[in-house]
Amino acid sequence: MIKIYSSLDEIKSFFEILKKRGGEDNHEALKSVEAILANVKEKGDEALLKYTKDFDGVELQNLKVTEEEVEEAMNLVAPELISVINKAISNIRKYHEKQVRNSWMMTEENGIVMGQKVMALEKVGVYVPGGSAAYPSSVLMNVIPAKIAGVSKICMVTPPQKNGKVNPDILAAAKLAGVDEIYKIGGAQAVAALSFGTETVPKVDKIVGPGNIYVALAKKLCYGTVDIDMIAGPSEILVISDEKSDPSFLAADLMSQAEHDRLASSVLITTSAELAAKVKEQLAIQVEKLERKDIIVDSLQRYGGILLVSSIDEAIELSNEIAPEHLELMVEKPFDILGKIKHAGSIFLGSYCPEPLGDYMAGPNHVLPTTGTARFYSPLSVDDYVKKSSFLYYPKAALAEVKDDVITFTKHEGLTAHGNSVKVRFDNE
Amino acid sequence: MIKIYSSLDEIKSFFEILKKRGGEDNHEALKSVEAILANVKEKGDEALLKYTKDFDGVELQNLKVTEEEVEEAMNLVAPELISVINKAISNIRKYHEKQVRNSWMMTEENGIVMGQKVMALEKVGVYVPGGSAAYPSSVLMNVIPAKIAGVSKICMVTPPQKNGKVNPDILAAAKLAGVDEIYKIGGAQAVAALSFGTETVPKVDKIVGPGNIYVALAKKLCYGTVDIDMIAGPSEILVISDEKSDPSFLAADLMSQAEHDRLASSVLITTSAELAAKVKEQLAIQVEKLERKDIIVDSLQRYGGILLVSSIDEAIELSNEIAPEHLELMVEKPFDILGKIKHAGSIFLGSYCPEPLGDYMAGPNHVLPTTGTARFYSPLSVDDYVKKSSFLYYPKAALAEVKDDVITFTKHEGLTAHGNSVKVRFDNE
Repeated sequence: MIKIYSSLDEIKSFFEILKKRGGEDNHEALKSVEAILANVKEKGDEALLKYTKDFDGVELQNLKVTEEEVEEAMNLVAPELISVINKAISNIRKYHEKQVRNSWMMTEENGIVMGQKVMALEKVGVYVPGGSAAYPSSVLMNVIPAKIAGVSKICMVTPPQKNGKVNPDILAAAKLAGVDEIYKIGGAQAVAALSFGTETVPKVDKIVGPGNIYVALAKKLCYGTVDIDMIAGPSEILVISDEKSDPSFLAADLMSQAEHDRLASSVLITTSAELAAKVKEQLAIQVEKLERKDIIVDSLQRYGGILLVSSIDEAIELSNEIAPEHLELMVEKPFDILGKIKHAGSIFLGSYCPEPLGDYMAGPNHVLPTTGTARFYSPLSVDDYVKKSSFLYYPKAALAEVKDDVITFTKHEGLTAHGNSVKVRFDNE
Repeated sequence: MIKIYSSLDEIKSFFEILKKRGGEDNHEALKSVEAILANVKEKGDEALLKYTKDFDGVELQNLKVTEEEVEEAMNLVAPELISVINKAISNIRKYHEKQVRNSWMMTEENGIVMGQKVMALEKVGVYVPGGSAAYPSSVLMNVIPAKIAGVSKICMVTPPQKNGKVNPDILAAAKLAGVDEIYKIGGAQAVAALSFGTETVPKVDKIVGPGNIYVALAKKLCYGTVDIDMIAGPSEILVISDEKSDPSFLAADLMSQAEHDRLASSVLITTSAELAAKVKEQLAIQVEKLERKDIIVDSLQRYGGILLVSSIDEAIELSNEIAPEHLELMVEKPFDILGKIKHAGSIFLGSYCPEPLGDYMAGPNHVLPTTGTARFYSPLSVDDYVKKSSFLYYPKAALAEVKDDVITFTKHEGLTAHGNSVKVRFDNE
């Protein structure tokens, strides 16, 4: 179910397949999304209720989740889940608190003061997908950095189930993480509501969180009206291994990614042909006991691969070309090569650091750049929930020192009113 | 040429006009841009040369600016401009160096190591507009933070003049700021070239810099393939003044913004009706000597305003509603109110800190969020030229401590292969 590639030509052709992953034409979906955005902008709640009836199959009276519904959910959730959510919250907080940045200023002896003021965003919208699986971990990862940044109002949107309720695990995670308001809205209409505001839903400054293609397109179209987190594609893992790793660990890690999605990509790069063969065996053995076997097999066949290379340096070079979302360094001395990794969302070091550890419990964020965008995007962080203002103060004497330089510059750019604003301050001297 | 608004109703109607500024329908432009992107993606340099002939009216042999052309430009530029460019570079560097962030890590006693690796982007494209006016200051503001971040390759694109050359002031600024490669390409085709790469132009990781509507739309459409700086609209200034400011300073500052563009907005909020009347007089007097009088008058009539309020706190509240790109605090004790400013791109404190000082010489960046996007965007900074990776290391014993928690979490999310990747590591114990 997974191919082994041993020549560079084969590897390069495989990379071409990976690059096209998830890049299908969305022309029709885009037209639907444009119509939904326009309709919500014009009709507000009325449009939201209609789309919820049409798409989610439920007629709601109220879009907003009540305190009672949240309390009810807290009672329905397994106590063991509440307990691990609380442990995860504590670890995620500890890590993200290190990301907090202070405002700063610098002064000069002639009285100049300048600096940068760091402030939390006021209102943030968090999209949480509905559907068959509920991911409370995703609620934590999107909400906790916003809380640490100091966002005043966090509004969660999530599609209702057929019974008109929200999955209780999701509500419990929202409550424990500190979400302020929850709305039963999904799809492009939820993104529209948060971007433009309606009678019930507040307009926010930024929208984060994963969603289907309609949600992703709506976020892209609303970008600029609000900020968004990033443009996300299908997920991937890349594992670099020397000959010493345990093949059963490697197989398990590849499949943990593959079970997400038929478009997910799981790639192992190794220096050992013997190991490659053993991993293949392990995949066949382990997959039998896994619930999402069909998805795993399909994903590994389409976008999985074991690449044989002659050195760990060559493996790193290929990894930097892929710029993977998740990168596991399963080599004897993983810290030795950390400095060579140029592009990766999250890096997992050593044999006892499987990616799912980072998905849930360890602390770093699991919202990561996908499909090669780790070249320029970063893991979701406290930085995503703040914005900065620069500030500048000059006393008169300090402006006098530079006034001629500013005027010279404005003259060469043909902006005389710019020069005039400096000049006028010394006209009566 | 500027209206005075004294009731809150009038002010709110004026704000509605401001909010619609620059929001015209770009449906036709969007279609052209889509075609240009597709064509450059398919045909590369051939398409670039054809568009340059059609749009810029010049048949080029080479898209890349040579070393000789740069040297020639350095000889053509006025020495006084070289001198102020060098002074500006020094100030801009000093400010932006304070923004540099270190990678960090945290350790725990049980051997856990985790942290965040901060790395410069590899390749960045800087768009520099051509047309009537050349803005070397814009080159500095976009390039210097990239240099400080450590970007390996900075590629500048700018449309050629009719004679096939690039404005020498632009080339000199690029040379002095440290641009690595310069290409004579403008418009949406330049953004396409940098996003997809061609035979001559390298594919970059991020595109920054201002441009016309075609450039802006191309950047928006390519967002996700590459990163972009921000979605920029027309420029604005807001000045808050008590009764003590000099009306001639205020008038000059409003006009320095108004001269940019007929869509620019210049707004004064003051507690003094007497001052408002004097500013109006000063505008009429000063505008007569300014070269761009027509644009100034038009801009002030359309999007200029003097708002009379009863207190500085009320002025701040209105300012926070506008979230201006440039905010001048022309009050006696400007630092007293800095803490109340929630949304602004760049804040100028006191009577001797006119906005053009920040445009050229002081140090903070002049690439700022416009049309209310200061609610969520920040000034261009070193942060825009880095990306982060998180990293995580767990020894076996540390994983053993949390393994049951991770497995519990995966079970509730229905992801058994996730749980398996932890479980398999302890199967033979």
